[in-house]
Amino acid sequence: MTTLEAIKYVRGELQVLDQLKLPHEFVYDNVSTCEQAFDCIKSMRVRGAPAIAIVAALALAVELEHKKDGRKCTTQKADTIKYINSKLDYLMGSRPTAVDLSNAIKRLKKKSAATAANSLTSDQTLACADIRLSYIEGAEKILEDDLTTNLAIGRYGAEYLRRQQMPVLSPVDDADSLRYFTTSPPGTQGAPDRTYRKLSVLTHCNTGSLATSGHGTALGIIRSLYKMNYLDTAYCTETRPYNQGSRLTAFEMVFEKIPSTLITDSMAGALFSRMKEEKNISAVIVGADRVARNGDTANKIGTYSLAVLARHHNIKFVVAAPTTSIDLFTESGDSIKIEDRAQTELMQISGAVVGKDGKVDVNNTARVAIADQRINVWNPSFDVTPHLLIDAIITEKGEVVRSSKGTFNFKSIMPERWREQVESSAESEATTNSSLGLQTSLSEEGTQFHMESI
Amino acid sequence: MTTLEAIKYVRGELQVLDQLKLPHEFVYDNVSTCEQAFDCIKSMRVRGAPAIAIVAALALAVELEHKKDGRKCTTQKADTIKYINSKLDYLMGSRPTAVDLSNAIKRLKKKSAATAANSLTSDQTLACADIRLSYIEGAEKILEDDLTTNLAIGRYGAEYLRRQQMPVLSPVDDADSLRYFTTSPPGTQGAPDRTYRKLSVLTHCNTGSLATSGHGTALGIIRSLYKMNYLDTAYCTETRPYNQGSRLTAFEMVFEKIPSTLITDSMAGALFSRMKEEKNISAVIVGADRVARNGDTANKIGTYSLAVLARHHNIKFVVAAPTTSIDLFTESGDSIKIEDRAQTELMQISGAVVGKDGKVDVNNTARVAIADQRINVWNPSFDVTPHLLIDAIITEKGEVVRSSKGTFNFKSIMPERWREQVESSAESEATTNSSLGLQTSLSEEGTQFHMESI
Repeated sequence: MTTLEAIKYVRGELQVLDQLKLPHEFVYDNVSTCEQAFDCIKSMRVRGAPAIAIVAALALAVELEHKKDGRKCTTQKADTIKYINSKLDYLMGSRPTAVDLSNAIKRLKKKSAATAANSLTSDQTLACADIRLSYIEGAEKILEDDLTTNLAIGRYGAEYLRRQQMPVLSPVDDADSLRYFTTSPPGTQGAPDRTYRKLSVLTHCNTGSLATSGHGTALGIIRSLYKMNYLDTAYCTETRPYNQGSRLTAFEMVFEKIPSTLITDSMAGALFSRMKEEKNISAVIVGADRVARNGDTANKIGTYSLAVLARHHNIKFVVAAPTTSIDLFTESGDSIKIEDRAQTELMQISGAVVGKDGKVDVNNTARVAIADQRINVWNPSFDVTPHLLIDAIITEKGEVVRSSKGTFNFKSIMPERWREQVESSAESEATTNSSLGLQTSLSEEGTQFHMESI
Repeated sequence: MTTLEAIKYVRGELQVLDQLKLPHEFVYDNVSTCEQAFDCIKSMRVRGAPAIAIVAALALAVELEHKKDGRKCTTQKADTIKYINSKLDYLMGSRPTAVDLSNAIKRLKKKSAATAANSLTSDQTLACADIRLSYIEGAEKILEDDLTTNLAIGRYGAEYLRRQQMPVLSPVDDADSLRYFTTSPPGTQGAPDRTYRKLSVLTHCNTGSLATSGHGTALGIIRSLYKMNYLDTAYCTETRPYNQGSRLTAFEMVFEKIPSTLITDSMAGALFSRMKEEKNISAVIVGADRVARNGDTANKIGTYSLAVLARHHNIKFVVAAPTTSIDLFTESGDSIKIEDRAQTELMQISGAVVGKDGKVDVNNTARVAIADQRINVWNPSFDVTPHLLIDAIITEKGEVVRSSKGTFNFKSIMPERWREQVESSAESEATTNSSLGLQTSLSEEGTQFHMESI
């Protein structure tokens, strides 16, 4: 399997896939300066919160690497720190609202400052080189961590979904063997193998290699399902109004030859109703813009409708999200503000022109009107899915499943953050209001299932 | 209010709105021959089952009207009949699968033949004129009947929805008075007026003036709600993949200044979740391609998803359909075959080109690629909504609401057809299999509510 890389990096060299040319053209841009990275982010040639942070961080790493000969290098520690900080501040301007970018910048500034403070050499050139190397390693760690996170989410998600399957007891028809896989059931290492039906899933929007360092979150689970031979078919929605599904997710699936089928957002109900049994459709898997403390999940518009349809058809609804997307300060989805976007996004669409011969001319794009241009439009960018419609939230630290009481307990996967961000503030609140009951919910039994224990 | 007319007719003259130019241009074609009508239907400039039948029927009426001077007229009764029949057979070829067209042609052939048989004059020229006039009146009756049907559906539907509203007992804030209407509640003619909140509805696809003789079915109910001052906002879905909602329904709403808002199909859930209370969203109203005997309804893809979402949000789900769409021979939706359509419908879209200045150039249309062209696509043209998700089916003969047992009883609105098509066949079956239990379901109490009794 060829693995799709939206970001290609070796020390001193960064190449970024131009996503504006997808799915018709597959072109990498060389990004060797912060200015090029800024332009790349600003013009949306790279998109997806983790990918944006990685490109910004690595662009400066490439710049610093090429300055190792010292020709243009500043000679004072303080100057190097100032230089790094000013470049990072500049990069923040490429997408001021991006939380991942902001976090990456904070992390890199902190690391560089610490290296400068701890550097004991009196040779300023050496000290500067230390700071530069420290920055480069820090930026590379961000790339590495994101990939590790995605691979863990993929693996946890795939195993979670496999555990929902019942083994097939009747013998498998040889002609149909491609629809089955064989494995030891959970907790029975060494026990005789069992046979399961491969499973199909539906995903929404694009949460794959293109939005991350690689692999992806929701699409990472699908990649893992495929690699582990558990996957029958991955369905993806078009994801109106920006068609991230039909342009980007479809592209990723085709690129890696994952068996997949595109539908319009409106076909999800019909798909479940007609194909659930035949294709063993077991889950809807989506990413998350933000997960609130109670599990309520904000994600691309259309997610909530899919959650209602999944529940109606007794299909699991699974959110894939790194723990950085879980916002313990936001108590529930009620306090998540939803941006209404421009009306024209629904009324017009851009694409490569299709000639009379049916061929797509990638060098000729047009914007066309697909609606009455005078109609009033409502265009919320995302929606909030209540936690009661979510079956499991898959993070890099394991899965959190909805408890029998209908709650999600994130304390089990991140006890420290929980203590810092929830319990300490609850304690200070408890001094003024002891009836909050927050302590009770904290003591609920953990529902998380660690990968190590599979 | 300007009323939108897709078909303009006075005896001897027929004009048909070119729907391919919508929503950007508003152009009528003169249709004075059967050849022009054929071309108009074949090229999709007119669409919608009732509208196609009406245009075909009236085109021949116009031809026959202009032959009243006898110059080119055949002189024998038999020749006139032959001429009419051959023209009608020719017109059938414009859309061989259209049931409404087929029914209209059968009806007109029968009427012409009857007139010829009953004509007692020995003057063949006079007899031919009689036949021509009889045809013309028959074709005009088809137009008239369709309009009457739609107006009745609109009125029944609007009154049904009004009856679901609870009167507002607290005084209305003057500043907010536009959100309320005042009327006598059902069954209380002469009683003091009561105040109700205006209601909002969501519709799917295009079921309005453009698809019918005027007014429309589902959109006819919305027109009636608006005319009766019951309507707050009509929401319409884009209706992928053909965008009948954003192109045609949006156009109709704008044309008649009905307060309306366009959403993507994927936003319906978020709309209900966020706006149900604020906008008093009371119903989803859709048309029907076919209604089975048990109420299962085949309609444009996406209808079923809306029905599930409506149920989840406790919003009424209403089907608007003339009794001709109710197929008593089809027992349930299970036996309705669903056509899978071409993959390119999802992957490409056509529209008027939007210039760099943001202006739409109606004379310049382009087809653009909006998906990876290599992805596999599933494109069912419609879906089946189970009757248990439907609250009421509104016909020109009144509404049929789902009974407390979860059944629809069409016998109440069309007892004769029921006797002919259901009971007689059930009786003949009963002789071979007395355990069918069909008689029991027939004797269930009627749930239909006649307009006369409001």
